[in-house]
Amino acid sequence: MTYKAGIVGAAGFAGIELARLIAGHPHFELAAATSDALAGTPLASAYPAFAGVTDLAFSTHAEANLAACDVVFLAVPHTAALAVAPGLIEQGATVVDLSADFRLKDPSVYEQWYKTPHTAPDLLKQVAFGLPEVTGAELAQAAARHAAGEAVLVGCAGCYPTATSLAAAPAIRAGLVDASATVVVDAVSGVTGAGKKATERTHFCFANENVEAYGVGTHRHTPEIEQILGLRTGSLVFTPHLAPLNRGLLSTVNLPLAPDAPLPSVAELNEIYQRFYENAPLVTVLPTGTLPKTASVAGTARAHVGVAVHEAARMIIAIGAIDNIGKGAAGQAVQCANIVFGLPEEAGLNAVSTPV
Amino acid sequence: MTYKAGIVGAAGFAGIELARLIAGHPHFELAAATSDALAGTPLASAYPAFAGVTDLAFSTHAEANLAACDVVFLAVPHTAALAVAPGLIEQGATVVDLSADFRLKDPSVYEQWYKTPHTAPDLLKQVAFGLPEVTGAELAQAAARHAAGEAVLVGCAGCYPTATSLAAAPAIRAGLVDASATVVVDAVSGVTGAGKKATERTHFCFANENVEAYGVGTHRHTPEIEQILGLRTGSLVFTPHLAPLNRGLLSTVNLPLAPDAPLPSVAELNEIYQRFYENAPLVTVLPTGTLPKTASVAGTARAHVGVAVHEAARMIIAIGAIDNIGKGAAGQAVQCANIVFGLPEEAGLNAVSTPV
Amino acid sequence: MTYKAGIVGAAGFAGIELARLIAGHPHFELAAATSDALAGTPLASAYPAFAGVTDLAFSTHAEANLAACDVVFLAVPHTAALAVAPGLIEQGATVVDLSADFRLKDPSVYEQWYKTPHTAPDLLKQVAFGLPEVTGAELAQAAARHAAGEAVLVGCAGCYPTATSLAAAPAIRAGLVDASATVVVDAVSGVTGAGKKATERTHFCFANENVEAYGVGTHRHTPEIEQILGLRTGSLVFTPHLAPLNRGLLSTVNLPLAPDAPLPSVAELNEIYQRFYENAPLVTVLPTGTLPKTASVAGTARAHVGVAVHEAARMIIAIGAIDNIGKGAAGQAVQCANIVFGLPEEAGLNAVSTPV
Amino acid sequence: MTYKAGIVGAAGFAGIELARLIAGHPHFELAAATSDALAGTPLASAYPAFAGVTDLAFSTHAEANLAACDVVFLAVPHTAALAVAPGLIEQGATVVDLSADFRLKDPSVYEQWYKTPHTAPDLLKQVAFGLPEVTGAELAQAAARHAAGEAVLVGCAGCYPTATSLAAAPAIRAGLVDASATVVVDAVSGVTGAGKKATERTHFCFANENVEAYGVGTHRHTPEIEQILGLRTGSLVFTPHLAPLNRGLLSTVNLPLAPDAPLPSVAELNEIYQRFYENAPLVTVLPTGTLPKTASVAGTARAHVGVAVHEAARMIIAIGAIDNIGKGAAGQAVQCANIVFGLPEEAGLNAVSTPV
Repeated sequence: MTYKAGIVGAAGFAGIELARLIAGHPHFELAAATSDALAGTPLASAYPAFAGVTDLAFSTHAEANLAACDVVFLAVPHTAALAVAPGLIEQGATVVDLSADFRLKDPSVYEQWYKTPHTAPDLLKQVAFGLPEVTGAELAQAAARHAAGEAVLVGCAGCYPTATSLAAAPAIRAGLVDASATVVVDAVSGVTGAGKKATERTHFCFANENVEAYGVGTHRHTPEIEQILGLRTGSLVFTPHLAPLNRGLLSTVNLPLAPDAPLPSVAELNEIYQRFYENAPLVTVLPTGTLPKTASVAGTARAHVGVAVHEAARMIIAIGAIDNIGKGAAGQAVQCANIVFGLPEEAGLNAVSTPV
Repeated sequence: MTYKAGIVGAAGFAGIELARLIAGHPHFELAAATSDALAGTPLASAYPAFAGVTDLAFSTHAEANLAACDVVFLAVPHTAALAVAPGLIEQGATVVDLSADFRLKDPSVYEQWYKTPHTAPDLLKQVAFGLPEVTGAELAQAAARHAAGEAVLVGCAGCYPTATSLAAAPAIRAGLVDASATVVVDAVSGVTGAGKKATERTHFCFANENVEAYGVGTHRHTPEIEQILGLRTGSLVFTPHLAPLNRGLLSTVNLPLAPDAPLPSVAELNEIYQRFYENAPLVTVLPTGTLPKTASVAGTARAHVGVAVHEAARMIIAIGAIDNIGKGAAGQAVQCANIVFGLPEEAGLNAVSTPV
Repeated sequence: MTYKAGIVGAAGFAGIELARLIAGHPHFELAAATSDALAGTPLASAYPAFAGVTDLAFSTHAEANLAACDVVFLAVPHTAALAVAPGLIEQGATVVDLSADFRLKDPSVYEQWYKTPHTAPDLLKQVAFGLPEVTGAELAQAAARHAAGEAVLVGCAGCYPTATSLAAAPAIRAGLVDASATVVVDAVSGVTGAGKKATERTHFCFANENVEAYGVGTHRHTPEIEQILGLRTGSLVFTPHLAPLNRGLLSTVNLPLAPDAPLPSVAELNEIYQRFYENAPLVTVLPTGTLPKTASVAGTARAHVGVAVHEAARMIIAIGAIDNIGKGAAGQAVQCANIVFGLPEEAGLNAVSTPV
Repeated sequence: MTYKAGIVGAAGFAGIELARLIAGHPHFELAAATSDALAGTPLASAYPAFAGVTDLAFSTHAEANLAACDVVFLAVPHTAALAVAPGLIEQGATVVDLSADFRLKDPSVYEQWYKTPHTAPDLLKQVAFGLPEVTGAELAQAAARHAAGEAVLVGCAGCYPTATSLAAAPAIRAGLVDASATVVVDAVSGVTGAGKKATERTHFCFANENVEAYGVGTHRHTPEIEQILGLRTGSLVFTPHLAPLNRGLLSTVNLPLAPDAPLPSVAELNEIYQRFYENAPLVTVLPTGTLPKTASVAGTARAHVGVAVHEAARMIIAIGAIDNIGKGAAGQAVQCANIVFGLPEEAGLNAVSTPV
């Protein structure tokens, strides 16, 4: 069975990766790729990786027949998804949103961090959060509702929350982490994370041969990570960094052990992680003593996780590596759609990263 | 139908990319991956891109049951293929050699450039040269012999010869190029082209932020390019360069127009190229006015070609872009195997490069 | 003795490098750095390399007291230098122009390539071309006129013309090159060559991990190279390429030997080059068998040149490496100013590139 | 006055940078550069940045007349400095050691982390630790002893300890940090930090387009940072990362506020930092709201520091950026030598990083 898929905002980095994934997907067919700015332009002109692959052109949002789509992916800036999701749902399309608009359960937290009111608080109540390995129950319910003929809405996790949560969740869910302590997360992203807009930050000559931190204490993924992991508000010290690579995100998560938790050995901790992800086809816990490299998952929807234990400080150091555009955005969106449509969750996501 | 495939020299850059491609191939199954140095090591330990993908480990050449393989890929240094190919052919395996050992038709040219005698000159006579879009007739004959139950030997083109020949062949075959003139080729390769060996040349800190030429007038791909394109010996001035990227090879080919050839417009020339490759699923001639980027084909077996015309100098500038490890090595080897086994030539090679 | 220096267009890549060089120059003092867009902004805010080094801020062109400057460097787009140079000269300032406005001797060639009339053809007659090692006589005359109290105008060579001419001039001046033949130049530049403007071309994610050719047959440096080297109009086939590095430019020049020239050995050719540059403190001819790397001159005003000979094709391959912003722009401008002001030509330009 | 300087281990990355710095230093003269492996090879052959700059060749350690040197820099692996420093001191040379051999005050800590006994514990007592802005008193004493004719020994700080301590010291010295808490430091280094040896880790194709953590909880700079900052043993959770750039190191330091310390505003904290470094010519505290970029200090001996405050978690986030080979190694060694010899501490270290 094949489902018609539309992409709203297909010219951005997450949108065009969605186009690539859907073009190679066994059960989705790319029916529309919208970009008001590039309407009429073949995908292959804007992104020559598609030359010889597809003749599809971008269309305007207005002209795209999204009502005919079974699933619509929203790869748009925040607030833009708020504007279009309700109508699409009403038309009966399942919506997988990659923006921040439907991630935060509490509309007041959204307003606080995004400085704009949330205009669809009712819709928010039925959103399934899209980080399958951690919030799978919500997706399972959405799949059931979808199977019953309902249009569902998925709010996919952001890139930093994905890598961070995949690294932290098994330890937290196992009760190993001190709920009263501060969690320090330092993460490093490639430059695709800064988006397609040509700015000084994304200029090759400024990004190249440079590492820097940004948005210390103010990054909007902070409340999202706290929500996913059930951390106290304000207990996460999250510092994102930019490094000179295209695709890749590494999150180093420092988790203080709960006072009453016995110190696990690395092997014991690794075992806990292995069990947590034993049914997750796209997440691999690396063997004890091995730490993840972003290059190993670049270009894919896969995640690698590795763990270490600092005895003296009673700290778990858990590290997650993803491709910020893959598992951190487009790949995860496809994975969520797969689940909602009752397909194998890794359908169309079997690509293995180039080994070198 | 599934065929058993073995890779000799699977730990090198071309070998491990073969492993990746065969792991995702609908008709080949990876039966053996040899590396005497890494025997016993899981592929996923040496190349963590395979973590969670395969449990296969490298085996020694001696232990690998290559006799049970339908096809054996040789991803070994030159002379090593000379040593093992004859025995494999005798055992009935089809051999696809990625080394230089079976590329040059004339064993004396081999000896001249590789400073070692060719020890299998008889085998050389039956080799099918592996650059399907240019030397397809040889591969078609090999496929016929294979269909008749014969073990065949393919000598795959090198990376520079592939990009250069794909750029030059349509113009030369159309009789547009002055056979008495000198052809200047300047090509740029990513660092995977220098191989897996850790040397000063491949050290990040020396390769990064640097461009340099090397092997001016002495690169061993020179006679191979002359052979493929039917150029006079000594008429090719070939200068390879190294640039700081992993995968990608761009060849800029300067072809003097034949004195009697009317000056083609770029559109006319483009049309000649389009026709030449109209049945080639993996080669795309870009629209007039568009030039190839290596990034657009990175990680794939695809090639992009673009052309320009310099009126005053009566020169065709033809540019070919490939992934040196993809279409320039492992991807092309799989493509050749596909042809020999009667499969669609792009089977298992449908991947589209990440658009960004 | 210290001279007051002003920079018009100091916020661009060449302009800000001029600021860095002048800040460390023993005889020039940075009196004004103009940028209408960034007026009032400290240099250290726009370019934090200056943090802790200088408190100077950009000023508007109108407010800058350029009339008080002994020398004014114009680091502006073409046509902008045409607009301001005449007035500055009239005010008595020596002008060193880094734009293309005063490079081409023939105003009609300027109009043909830059699609705009040359509005100061009279001034053009007195311009000293700024590529000291090749057009030193013009600079010597300018220095004499300057010593006599005259304001002089230097039109500095472009980046590609600099590397290409340094590589080609010794062979051409020695009469080794066939004046009737075509000269093929393939050159590779780092991304600073594309300027500070944030565009898709300069976006990290498009430039990184990519090599491409551009402007084939149409690059505006073509007539400039022909002029410097005395090549016939239309005899230069020049293809620039972009590679993923910040600073560095390599030009590979293919020079057909004159029919009557005896074939030189590489050592003989190297000797000719060594002699040509024996009094040039900033140009080094590498030993026979050694080819230049852009990394070796990055961040400096130095140039490295290497040569090879292709016997069968009777071709000299001469390769020049520079930093496109250093010797290719700001460094060369300072070198020219040094000469005009009677200073050692390498004053303030002694920096050695980081060895790794 | 000019002093003779020798470099032991001049062929490594820190050693050759020392050669570059000393070649441009107004008061030191490069008298010997040893490398047993490259003895007889000109510096310019191994590192072509020196072509046209110096004719000096590497000499063996045995042949180098180090006894004639006023100062000897040891840029050797740990244990090698232990072997040669005592003899040099005895011969009357002042020794500036860049290895780890004389950094740790307690020989048993050295033995614990370096798995080898410290063979010169007596010498250890007189070592001046080399991180001038933080341990300046030790260097001042060494300068006094040197002025009195004594040969002194400086044990220079490592790269991670330098960036980390520069970021953390002002807050700790001001009593703002909770002495009983855990300090989390996540740092990112360029690949020169991994040394000149060609390994899989330093291979371009493995390091490029990749970020990874390594040595979690086990990196040998851990006790050194604890010592410099006076942290409790075991209270530092230090995770170094590798990113794809040549030179640059960013340390993000998470400092929990002391329970009794009033929460400072960022501006107040910045003011504390400004005062701490007001007499430090090579350390710049960036304005409030600005965070350091490694690119701004690459190629120099400068450091940039920036701070932020996380109110809810009562955490200071202090970030230090250096060039790991500059301020993190060779530049700092020269700075220490300057101090010992009574020169301006920034003599020969005035270079400003390329702004782009």
